Order: sequence, then C-alpha cells, then structure tokens
Amino acid sequence: MTLTLARTMPGVLELLPPEQIAFQDMLDTIRGNFQRFGFLPIETPAIEFADILLTKQGGETERQVYFVQSTGALSALDRDADEKPELALRFDLTVPLARYVAEHERDLSFPFRRYQIQRVYRGERAQRGRFREFYQCDIDVIGKDRLSVRYDAEMPAVIHSVFRDLRIGPFQIQLNNRKLMRGYFESLGVTSDQQMLVLREVDKLDKRGAEAVRATLIGAPLGLSDAAVARIMAFVEVRSHSHADALARLDALEGGGDLFEQGRSELKEVLQLIRAFGVPESHYALNLSIARGLDYYTGTVYETHLLEHPQIGSICSGGRYDNLAGNYTTSHLPGVGISIGATRLFWQLREAGLLGAASSTVQVLVTMMDEAQLPAYLELATQLRNAGIATEVVMEPGKLAKQFKHADRAGVRFVAVLGPDEQAKGVVTLKDMRKQEQFEVARGELVRTLRVELEQAQVMG
Amino acid sequence: MTLTLARTMPGVLELLPPEQIAFQDMLDTIRGNFQRFGFLPIETPAIEFADILLTKQGGETERQVYFVQSTGALSALDRDADEKPELALRFDLTVPLARYVAEHERDLSFPFRRYQIQRVYRGERAQRGRFREFYQCDIDVIGKDRLSVRYDAEMPAVIHSVFRDLRIGPFQIQLNNRKLMRGYFESLGVTSDQQMLVLREVDKLDKRGAEAVRATLIGAPLGLSDAAVARIMAFVEVRSHSHADALARLDALEGGGDLFEQGRSELKEVLQLIRAFGVPESHYALNLSIARGLDYYTGTVYETHLLEHPQIGSICSGGRYDNLAGNYTTSHLPGVGISIGATRLFWQLREAGLLGAASSTVQVLVTMMDEAQLPAYLELATQLRNAGIATEVVMEPGKLAKQFKHADRAGVRFVAVLGPDEQAKGVVTLKDMRKQEQFEVARGELVRTLRVELEQAQVMG
Repeated sequence: MTLTLARTMPGVLELLPPEQIAFQDMLDTIRGNFQRFGFLPIETPAIEFADILLTKQGGETERQVYFVQSTGALSALDRDADEKPELALRFDLTVPLARYVAEHERDLSFPFRRYQIQRVYRGERAQRGRFREFYQCDIDVIGKDRLSVRYDAEMPAVIHSVFRDLRIGPFQIQLNNRKLMRGYFESLGVTSDQQMLVLREVDKLDKRGAEAVRATLIGAPLGLSDAAVARIMAFVEVRSHSHADALARLDALEGGGDLFEQGRSELKEVLQLIRAFGVPESHYALNLSIARGLDYYTGTVYETHLLEHPQIGSICSGGRYDNLAGNYTTSHLPGVGISIGATRLFWQLREAGLLGAASSTVQVLVTMMDEAQLPAYLELATQLRNAGIATEVVMEPGKLAKQFKHADRAGVRFVAVLGPDEQAKGVVTLKDMRKQEQFEVARGELVRTLRVELEQAQVMG
Repeated sequence: MTLTLARTMPGVLELLPPEQIAFQDMLDTIRGNFQRFGFLPIETPAIEFADILLTKQGGETERQVYFVQSTGALSALDRDADEKPELALRFDLTVPLARYVAEHERDLSFPFRRYQIQRVYRGERAQRGRFREFYQCDIDVIGKDRLSVRYDAEMPAVIHSVFRDLRIGPFQIQLNNRKLMRGYFESLGVTSDQQMLVLREVDKLDKRGAEAVRATLIGAPLGLSDAAVARIMAFVEVRSHSHADALARLDALEGGGDLFEQGRSELKEVLQLIRAFGVPESHYALNLSIARGLDYYTGTVYETHLLEHPQIGSICSGGRYDNLAGNYTTSHLPGVGISIGATRLFWQLREAGLLGAASSTVQVLVTMMDEAQLPAYLELATQLRNAGIATEVVMEPGKLAKQFKHADRAGVRFVAVLGPDEQAKGVVTLKDMRKQEQFEVARGELVRTLRVELEQAQVMG
C-alpha cells in the first residue's frame, strides 16, 4: 500500500501536547478575564454565506478569503470563472459579530457585551509568522442607538487584567483618538480624503521612523506643505509618561474645530476612567501616532506593547466604531472592541523564549508494579480523580525505569508507587519529579498532601 | 444602501448567550473529566490537505467533504471537472489524529493519551437534527506496536465520570466485542464477507426491531439458513442486568473457535476492570447487538444510552481498532477511543427539555445611580473582579427599573446598588435576583458574602 505523507498545510501552528497545554492556559486566562469583566460568550459557525462575509466587496479581504464547497456543489458548479462559491470561511470575528447582532437583535439585551474566542481563516501568502488559521480572542460592547464613551475606558482595564495575569513581562497600553487626529489635521487644511491617507501613514511611524513618514507626507500624491508636515510630525510624536503628563499634553495641544475638541474631551474622560478602573499609570500612555489600519474606527484606538520586546509589535488592539452592522440592519449599533491574536502571540512568545517550562495537565502517574494488583492501582486512581487530581495509570507491565521516564518526558509532577511494601504499610510512595524527592504518605493523607503540593506548584507556577 | 439578509447556513447550531453558557459548561465538564483521566490536549487545523483526509477514497465520506479554495486558487484552477481542490475541512477528529500521530510520532510518548474537542464539518443534506458544523469531543489511547485490552476498560470509566457530572439523568454504557460477534457468526458458517453485512444489520436491532433484522438476514443477498438466523438472533438479543449476570451470560454462550474465545476473554477482562474503576454496575451492561457502523473497529465497542430517553440514541460511542495510521506510516499503532457529539447532544437535550434554567456568567451587575459617582462604581467592580467575581458595570445613566430588567433578562444573580445612603453608611445594597431578596452588606464583608452565596448557588446548581 502506498503511504500518504503526513503533513499539515503551511501557515498553521500545530502544537505538541506540552505546548498545547501552555497555549490552552493562555486561552483560559484570557477567557477568565473576559468573563470577570462581565462579557458573555458567543460562538459563530466557521462557515458563513459568502455574501455575508464579503459585503464590502473586493480589496485585500476578498483576495484572502477561503471559499468552501461541498462535493455536490463542486460537480454541479457552472464553471463560469465569474461565479463565486456560495460559502466561505470567516476571516475575522467582527463581520460574524455584526451578522450575529443583526440576526438576533430582538433577543439580545443592549449594551451587548460579548466575548468570542475562535479560529479565523485567511489565505495569506505562506511566510514565517503569518498564519492561515489562527485564534482571535475578541470582546466588544455594542450599544443600541448610542454607547457612552465610558465603555472605551473599560477596554484598557480588561487588557491590563489579561496581560497582568499572563505574566509575559511589562506592557503598555497606548491610546489615541481618531477624532482628535482628524480634527487636528483638518485644522491644518488637510482635506477629508487626504486625512485617511495621512492616518495610514503616521500609523507606521514607530515602524518606519519619522524621516520616512515625513518624506511620504511631503511627496506626491499628498504633497502637504512643510509647515503642515512639521505640525503633523510634532503632533504624532506625542507620547505621555504618566497620567498627569497625558492630561497636560492633551491640554497643551493647540487644535482646531469641534471634531478636535470632541476627541480631546473623549480622550481625557477615557484617561480619567482608566485610572478609576485601577489600572496603574505605568500601564497606559498616549501615543498620538496610533490610527489602526482599519478605516471603520472612528474614535478611541488602542495598541498594547511589550516594553522589553518592541519587535513583537502590538499584542492587543482595537477601537471605537460608529456602526457595527450597517450592511445587515437599519439599526444604528455603535461599539467598541479589542482583539488578541492568540496564535500569533503564542508563536512570538515562543520565538522570544518567553514561554515558561512546559508542565503537564497530568498530575500523578500511578505505576504498575505487579499486573495482579491492577485493581488496586485503579482504585487509587479513582480516589485521586474523584478528588479532582488528574491521574494516569500505567496499564501494561514494564520496567519501572521506563515508567518514570514516561512521567518525566510528559512533565508529570508526581509518580505514585504502590508496591507490596506500601500495601502492607497502608501507604503510597510519591516521587516528586520536579524536586527529585521521594517520600511515603499514608493513604488517608494522600489527597490532602497532593493538593497542598500541587497548589504550591500553581502559586509558584 | 442595500441590506444583506443576516442569516446562517442551514445545519449549524448558533446559540444565544444563555444557551452558549450552558453549552460551554457542558464542554468544560467533558474537558475536565478527560484531563482528570490523564488525557493530554491536542488541536489540529480545520483545514487539511485533501489527500490526507481522503486516503480511503470515494464512498459516503467524500460525498460529504467540504473542499476549500482561496481566491487565488479559484481563479488559477484548471477547470477540469475531475480536478479536486487541494484543501478540505476535517469531517471527524480520527483522521486528523492519525495524521498527527504519524507526523509527530518521534516526539510523542506512547501509550499516547490524547483528548481533542473541536468542530468538524460535513456537507450533510439539510435535515432537522443533522449538523454540518458540530463539536466532537474525543479521547483515544494509542499504543506503539501493542496496547493492552485493559485500556478498553478505561473508556467506560471516563464515560461514567462525564455523564455523572453532566447530570442529564440515568444512563447505561453498553458493551460488545466484534471478535466475539464475528467468531460466533463464523462458527455458524457465516463467511467473512457475510459477517460484515450481518454486523451492520444486527447493529440496527434496537432501531428496526427483531422482525425486520431477521427478515434481512434470511432474505437475499445474505440468505442465511433459518437455524443460523435463529442462533444469531438469540445471540444479539443478549442484554445483561448486573455485573454477575454479564459474566454469566458470556460464560453461557456456546461459541466456536479462537476468535470467539478471544473476544469472550477480552470482554470478561474489560467487565472486571470496569468494576475495579469503581463504575457502579447499574451503569454498564452487555448488549450483544452493538457493532458500530464503522468497519475499522476490531474488538471492544461501546454505546451509551440515556435510560429515560431511548429515542435520543447513543450519546457516546467508540471502540478498539487495530491500526490507526496505516495510511501514513508503517508503524503499527493500535488504539481505543470514544467520541461525544456535543452539538447534537446539546440540541437533543434541549429538544427533550432536559437543559436546566439558563444562568449567566455575569454574577454581579453594579447599577448606576449617579453619573458623578461612576469612579466609585468602577472601584467597586475592580474589587469584585480582583476577587474573581464576574462583574458588569452600567456605564450609562438610565432608570433603575431598566437596569434591574437588564440584569433579570441576562440571568445575572446579584444587582449591587451603591447610592448616597449606602456610601454614607459604608455598605452596598445587594438584590438577589433569584430569591428576590434585598439586603445591605458592609463593604468589608462584600466579597466574602458574595462568595458564600455564589458557591451555594453552584452546589445547588
């Protein structure tokens, strides 16, 4: 028989169990924080009607969409080159959210606070660090008709809580407001069409550097005046160094019309409430170059950076938008949200050597000393499992050294030995694989002892 | 602007948040039990190379496969009707497991115990209760070269633990062994080819009834003798009513050759160990009609039935197979596994009215009494969140009655009121939405009080 080479498509991150456990811990931490902030879970199908996903038509998005066809549809397909398949895979969680809210509007209570942790699919060109299938972890608050800017302050509070708990080093949430930016550019005589180009350009400031950005603003097709560009550059280079500094720098801006003032007032309110949420001021700052690529943001925008690993770029971004689901409903649904690209983040942390030592979800391995005693081993395992301790039992006879090696390789913390001596004495011998210590525990004390040891491990984790 | 109708593809189960929470609870219970039994998590990409998924070629499976193409591939495709797309969506978790084990064989420790909880995709004809995208929750133990039949006894122990914790009523795990069946049929002169047909036929006994099955066995093309059919029917109608009864019924079978005896001995060992695992004997029984449709099972087979809802059919099935990954590796990898179709199970429980009242993941809603006091509300929420209590804050002013209605509608348990009176007295007024009781709690006692109340709620579930 011919063998098929076992392989995955390029652009996916498939993990071995120890890494999968670390990744699952990351997702659980994110989910736990989303829930603690009162966000409700939803899940949507990976497959959606293509016309739902591609309402905007054309552009980058459609070039990356994966279309889906069942075998029946494939053979029935009228093979006209212009005919697109009816189904596609979601490429983000925002479009499905818009469809979800529009479809279930009558059954939802607004402001609707949802979290969603699912995979998305993009037919990217294969490239290191680019994924075709990856997790997004999103939260959004959706208002009916209106949504207070106060909710914009909640996002940094969630981001702070998530990344504090993930323990991946110091981080900073950077804030800006597109009304502030556009209002400021407007006051310099930059037209509405130009503003969008300027936003996209200054957004690259931290990547490309000031000189490159300045050159683009001055050169064709923008061709802004030297004076305007000088003021734009001074504006977008604003970074704050404390809470008071952020407010002072906003007050110091000499701006223009209503849009600018609205942005300034929103940003000040958001800053004040972030502090009220208890976010330490070292964890948030103004960065007036941030615009976020997507045109649908209209107010507050966020990025999050690991201070010791600037090369990683933003690990959590988002912002405020005016209307979520205008393609599917006449209801006006403003919202604010953030997204963590967990697969890419995990990959980057691994690349940067920031992932801790892998530990197993299995906490105890019960060894097999004597086949005839298997029922006693199973009984021991059942006792531990009923106490919530994850336990594996060796079910086939084999050298004890090999059994210990299995535990070690799998990252199991404790190996339990229940030999004839132990059975006679009513004890179990536990070997702590991390400390390389061995000790006897009375059967009646076993669960309590393991719980104490495992809890310490978790705290020290 | 033209609106696109917000809708999902037929054959998907999209849930509103209260149901999504109940579904998530189900998945968490399943996952928790898989982990407690020492199974390790893996996840595989939804998109695989089509040649990996379709090694067996043709048949029912390929007719249900969803093929995937990026836009680039679509336009480049040589539109020859025979050319199949290169990528497809997984239709189960077993084929991806086989590919995973073959691909990562050198990095895995055997016996490899994995759990996997992910969605799978099948282009089924749209039909009530049939899903095109649904969760499977699988565990498998894979041996290298060999795997003791003892592992077959662990599956019912996991099934028992899962369905005990899901609390969906009394259930029974039914066991059989395909060696026992085939050996028995062989002794009646049923040829090897006929055996497969007979297995498929008797597997339908509980659905179609004895008369229909008997008629098929006697009629063309099988055309078995009356005597053989009488003995087959007597065999497949065996059901046990206790542990001792199961062993006695196995002993009472008058069988044939080696294959039969091997099956009998395996089944007896499995029964003995199931008891050693502590599974109460009311929860397992012989059902000698069970064969499972899939031809790749070779030994023990399982089904699980809700005793009070026989119409639901098996809610967890699986069995032993000889070689997992023969399509991808020359290594011999025997295994045993089970699968829970969680989406279908959830849907069936809902249809049968077996889902409890929905409760929210949000535990406390902090009301807004006075806009100026928002920082105090946020501080209160941060205190609760840091204590692990899921808390939502109303951020926009509105009638208090409307805020309570929002909590009620969302299934939030407690509403916290922090008005001027409460602030003066250093207390918070809590309204228990379930008990419809209201009481004041000192700020210093708040976390402790809520924890006690919420834990009681959980225990009372």
